[in-house]
Amino acid sequence: METTKDLQANPTAMSINTAVHAWQQQNKTIATLFDKYDAEVYEHEVAPGRNRADYLLGHLIASNDGLLPLLGFGDKLFPELDKYFAPNTEWSYDDYPTLPELKQKWEKLNSTLSVHFDKLPLNGWLGKHTRVSEEDFSVDPLRNKLAVLIGRTIHMGYHLGQLAFLNEKVAI
Amino acid sequence: METTKDLQANPTAMSINTAVHAWQQQNKTIATLFDKYDAEVYEHEVAPGRNRADYLLGHLIASNDGLLPLLGFGDKLFPELDKYFAPNTEWSYDDYPTLPELKQKWEKLNSTLSVHFDKLPLNGWLGKHTRVSEEDFSVDPLRNKLAVLIGRTIHMGYHLGQLAFLNEKVAI
Repeated sequence: METTKDLQANPTAMSINTAVHAWQQQNKTIATLFDKYDAEVYEHEVAPGRNRADYLLGHLIASNDGLLPLLGFGDKLFPELDKYFAPNTEWSYDDYPTLPELKQKWEKLNSTLSVHFDKLPLNGWLGKHTRVSEEDFSVDPLRNKLAVLIGRTIHMGYHLGQLAFLNEKVAI
Repeated sequence: METTKDLQANPTAMSINTAVHAWQQQNKTIATLFDKYDAEVYEHEVAPGRNRADYLLGHLIASNDGLLPLLGFGDKLFPELDKYFAPNTEWSYDDYPTLPELKQKWEKLNSTLSVHFDKLPLNGWLGKHTRVSEEDFSVDPLRNKLAVLIGRTIHMGYHLGQLAFLNEKVAI
């Protein structure tokens, strides 16, 4: 990673690192939240009739794991999770991963992504992701890898808003 | 705003515009959500014992209105909203703004912020916001205006995750 001085001299690096930093913060906030309560709390629905907290963690892992192929870094680390989150698949909580397994996957995924993020050149962040065609990208260059990163950062916030309801007293 | 060609030639502009675009998208998603149901639906709590949807919209307006002073653009447009969201203030839903009033404020705020965003030079986005000292900023240049924008974008996602519960059938 660049030093502070390098960053100040390079506004593109600074802009991208600001976004990567926001990503890392959301990652940590989720890890902290899943360390906060006793394990059985995460088997509760975040609100009546809604998803269990441990299901949302699995969903976030499966979703962010998809960044590896989407950003051109390689295959998913945990394709075995897909069956729990893909539509129309049969599964039960009897064989759903345990909280320690999920937390371990979350850490492993984030350390793997960090290595790829650090190696990606600045102009790589502004290049197209793997699910947009060259033609569509030339029309809309905002469909770049940085946009994907920011979108997934917002997506973590989205589910953090739901997970906040595990706390009975949360106000806003 | 820059054209696509300008953007491709200027990676800093592209990076910042990618973040501003994500901001705009969350703005629109919220506006769309508050057009989706009959007005009385937004008087429901998003989950039992949680905030009403129209309260969350007011909170997002008051929060994003704070960007005007925080980013050095000027005073808040709607300081009269603060009493509903500041801690330890007395208020009741009897005089809480109506949904049309809140929606109008949301649009007015976003068009005002857009004008300021368009005028802010690229290096302005990487400058410090008004609540960090020069000294602290020199130690951590990621405490810049762009970081504030991304943070508030995530914050909209956070409450959108809660507002999604207005839909009884939302899955994930």
